[in-house]
Amino acid sequence: MPAAPKSSSRAGRRPGNQDTRGAILAAAREAFAAKGFAATSIRAIAAEAEVDAALVHHYFGSKQELFLATVALPVPLPDIFDRLLEPGIDGFGERLVGTVLAIWESDARPALAAGLRSIIADPAMTRTMREFATTELMGRVLAAMDVPPAEAELRAGLVASHLLGLFTARYLIELPAAVGPSAEALTAAVGPVLQRYLDGDFAHADDLIRTGSGEDAP
Amino acid sequence: MPAAPKSSSRAGRRPGNQDTRGAILAAAREAFAAKGFAATSIRAIAAEAEVDAALVHHYFGSKQELFLATVALPVPLPDIFDRLLEPGIDGFGERLVGTVLAIWESDARPALAAGLRSIIADPAMTRTMREFATTELMGRVLAAMDVPPAEAELRAGLVASHLLGLFTARYLIELPAAVGPSAEALTAAVGPVLQRYLDGDFAHADDLIRTGSGEDAP
Repeated sequence: MPAAPKSSSRAGRRPGNQDTRGAILAAAREAFAAKGFAATSIRAIAAEAEVDAALVHHYFGSKQELFLATVALPVPLPDIFDRLLEPGIDGFGERLVGTVLAIWESDARPALAAGLRSIIADPAMTRTMREFATTELMGRVLAAMDVPPAEAELRAGLVASHLLGLFTARYLIELPAAVGPSAEALTAAVGPVLQRYLDGDFAHADDLIRTGSGEDAP
Repeated sequence: MPAAPKSSSRAGRRPGNQDTRGAILAAAREAFAAKGFAATSIRAIAAEAEVDAALVHHYFGSKQELFLATVALPVPLPDIFDRLLEPGIDGFGERLVGTVLAIWESDARPALAAGLRSIIADPAMTRTMREFATTELMGRVLAAMDVPPAEAELRAGLVASHLLGLFTARYLIELPAAVGPSAEALTAAVGPVLQRYLDGDFAHADDLIRTGSGEDAP
């Protein structure tokens, strides 16, 4: 059973009401923006919101889920990545674009569009989402790849860039050429490209790495 | 010689000073947002700014250039597209990504980032840029392609999406995996993909079109 909130100067807050949930979200937004995803604890957010940490877990689940709620992304992305990566990197490109486009095409679309827009436009959101995406999403993909780290990062970065552009063009800017095709058509066109970025031969990969970030190259 | 501004209730505006330039920009922003790119004339903007149309041309050149100035994009994109398309669609994907990444890597970067951010975050900017990009940029590419219109639109939309994602990931969100590689490495990796979207065989193009927007399919 979640503990009752500690006494607070802000009146009317009780477990189960919207004020409590809102206070936790506000405290979480502030903490993630100030200290980043990794350095922020549920305990610190609970203290700031003047509630028990158990209540934060009760409302939002994990720290990942709380973070996604602060950017209005109602989708457990790390869990989805785990599931899509279970069969390995083979076919992950196709699975990933198909799954995320299906989510965008669902009722979640308005929340996702608002979340992505704020991630792009609000510098504090940009910073925390960048860290979250790098450690919690990209990290999972990199761990599943069997190439040197710098090459894996380039490959995963190309996948992330292409997907991000698809979301931005189709759901934020609503460019007619990106809105016209069905999600199935886009999945069929983009999936093989993402897969090739992940594990295919592409334009002199060795040269790319040498002229790339230069870290951890073999 | 540009004509002098008409008498105005706003004091201190003279040809050549910042107030005049700013008033034209403000009037243009308002007009493009209200009526879109095509339906807005230089003459109407000049009337709204209470200056002669010749003065608008003097400061900003063409309507395209004035529009790009309103979104803080200091780059004559339509001219660049004309130049890159001169040899035809063959190799255009490589030329395009190389050229636009080089522009992003130049001194123009802060203005481009601010412009792209406002295009994504400000609904009025989104609307006018969407129309501008469709008629003034995408239109040029479609005209150079030798495939049915619906297929051309899908192909060009994939190119636009991929490029937009590259800009967003590398210059707005600054995702480490998209920031690490050099512009040359990204050009070498992305160029062939864009070219394949434009004129290569890709995943059952006929099926894509049939499940796509459905207009103008052969």
